[in-house]
Amino acid sequence: MPPPGSQPSTPPNPPHHPHDESGVEWLRGEGAETDVVLSSRVRLARNLTSFPFANRASSEQRQEILDISRSAVRVAGIADRTLWLNIHETSPADRALLVERHIISKQLQRGRAATVGEDPRGVCVSLPVERVSIMVNEEDHLRLQVVRSGLALDEAWRQADGIDDALESAVDYAYSPRLGYLTACATNVGTGLRMSAMLHLPALKITGDIEKVKKAAGDMCLAVRGFYGEGSEAVGDLYQISNQTTLGKTEAMILADLHERIIPQVIEYERLARKTLLTKRSLALHDQVYRSLGLLTSARLIAAEEAMQHLSLVRLGICTGLVKHLSSKTVAGLMLLVQPAHLQRTVGRELDQDARREARATLLRERLSR
Amino acid sequence: MPPPGSQPSTPPNPPHHPHDESGVEWLRGEGAETDVVLSSRVRLARNLTSFPFANRASSEQRQEILDISRSAVRVAGIADRTLWLNIHETSPADRALLVERHIISKQLQRGRAATVGEDPRGVCVSLPVERVSIMVNEEDHLRLQVVRSGLALDEAWRQADGIDDALESAVDYAYSPRLGYLTACATNVGTGLRMSAMLHLPALKITGDIEKVKKAAGDMCLAVRGFYGEGSEAVGDLYQISNQTTLGKTEAMILADLHERIIPQVIEYERLARKTLLTKRSLALHDQVYRSLGLLTSARLIAAEEAMQHLSLVRLGICTGLVKHLSSKTVAGLMLLVQPAHLQRTVGRELDQDARREARATLLRERLSR
Repeated sequence: MPPPGSQPSTPPNPPHHPHDESGVEWLRGEGAETDVVLSSRVRLARNLTSFPFANRASSEQRQEILDISRSAVRVAGIADRTLWLNIHETSPADRALLVERHIISKQLQRGRAATVGEDPRGVCVSLPVERVSIMVNEEDHLRLQVVRSGLALDEAWRQADGIDDALESAVDYAYSPRLGYLTACATNVGTGLRMSAMLHLPALKITGDIEKVKKAAGDMCLAVRGFYGEGSEAVGDLYQISNQTTLGKTEAMILADLHERIIPQVIEYERLARKTLLTKRSLALHDQVYRSLGLLTSARLIAAEEAMQHLSLVRLGICTGLVKHLSSKTVAGLMLLVQPAHLQRTVGRELDQDARREARATLLRERLSR
Repeated sequence: MPPPGSQPSTPPNPPHHPHDESGVEWLRGEGAETDVVLSSRVRLARNLTSFPFANRASSEQRQEILDISRSAVRVAGIADRTLWLNIHETSPADRALLVERHIISKQLQRGRAATVGEDPRGVCVSLPVERVSIMVNEEDHLRLQVVRSGLALDEAWRQADGIDDALESAVDYAYSPRLGYLTACATNVGTGLRMSAMLHLPALKITGDIEKVKKAAGDMCLAVRGFYGEGSEAVGDLYQISNQTTLGKTEAMILADLHERIIPQVIEYERLARKTLLTKRSLALHDQVYRSLGLLTSARLIAAEEAMQHLSLVRLGICTGLVKHLSSKTVAGLMLLVQPAHLQRTVGRELDQDARREARATLLRERLSR
């Protein structure tokens, strides 16, 4: 075991980044309110004071930012063990894997559209549990993310705040006494903080009340997004609810709003909807859950989105006690493993779309059969 | 055991007509070409000379026709054992049961729309295997039907012809030397003969070539109907192909046309389509078949039509060798047992629509699980 704060051995990018579900914090299924909340996430956007924002920086400047950040991360000691990845040097398959694990964003995966060749950018992630990650040269110079299984925005916030302080002692953040932290996009100026919870809301989807939740969230300036963030559909009935406002509210206010008021309320709505389905439409619920399970254990070809939808209903079956022989952790793990990059890493080779559909069906049958 | 040709004991309508699948000739799954042909059917329309057609006869006249027919049937000795049912005295549940077994038509079940109360009408059916039946006071005074498992229009025709001769020796048929047998509807005048085969054509449905078959059949003045005759949808991919022309063609010509030329051709088309699916779309076929089986063994609520559609695909799986642990006879039997009247008789009580969907799903799970 390397000592605390040590860096990975050379070469910096090991050939295989972890690709099973074991190290994924948001799949651990532990903590509070895990019947509805998969995970809590805190993200801080920060920029270095003496460079242009990442999007307007030259490749040379981005390389400098990358070097400074890497050194700051080492000094800050964000976790006992970390893995540093230069995204511009990783394979497309590895990048896709990191996106599916929610370690990097699609934007970091893609890089700058206008750039010829690959632009310096990277990520540092804690191991063996991927709880902390820092993206460098995404929209902002630094994007610190802390994830916790279950509802634990407070803990995630405390850890992020601590790491942020440690980083700040190693680099100069761009900061305005009047505006707060300066960010590439105005929507992040101020605290640079985004807090979100990933919620599984299948019952609200079935009853149709999800639309009311979305509307209410919009009225409160919250964003409701899908499983893979901005613009993504809510596949598998997974919704990320997050604050939109970063200016004019303290971190404590944002935390209190989401952690103590809004998320608990959505959890209650979902639980009420589940209870209603269980008492008033028990057989129909039973039917939907078991049809989904039957389909997942029978299909020979299945697309990721269809698999996600049925896994969602099976998870609902587990949480409502209708399905007893499976764990919601197994099902959540499959929600990751059915994604294209993970699927290919699991079977150990590249597959075209048809072959993926076949391999996905095989994997699901194997893992879900008693 | 009653002696040959004897009548059922008093009361004439036993409380429970057979309601399992064992006596149903068209579900036996024996004979020729049973991978595609469920059954062959020959029907003769006949009328008595000294009465108005059934639709214009008074209730008293219909009673007389019923009595004469019953006596003629007894004299003719159509089978070793027969059951006579006065349809106007049977319960709605029993009538529905007989329709589902293809022993009586919906028209005989319904009776004359204009009539207040129940109009005398009946059916005689051979037991224990329901191979021969004679409806009295349907559209025509007598409708003789002989059914055979598999492709056996020739055998069915020989038996029907023999019974027809025996009946003719007991009653006076309405017959014109110029037109042939006179019937209530002009489309049956002449031979009064309709021959049909019930075909299972799931592969032609999947490939879409079923439309070509329908068009070709239309061009040859053949009718293509669904599982429950005129106007019924082809649920479960079951199609009845029959001659439309009764005038100007001898019985031998109609038989040769259907039995030796047209039906064998459709069988070949279906087999070719199955082979194509098996070789060129093997995995997709496998997927469809096993999804259907998974659904049938998982659902907790299912409508008859949906069940039929999945049973059809499972039958295709059995015929193509993809499903080995089930017999096509089991599946064909379920195609009958999932129908509302049979379902209720099987569980032993009346059920509303929701309860039927539940009972149907339970029955399917029980019968299809290994």
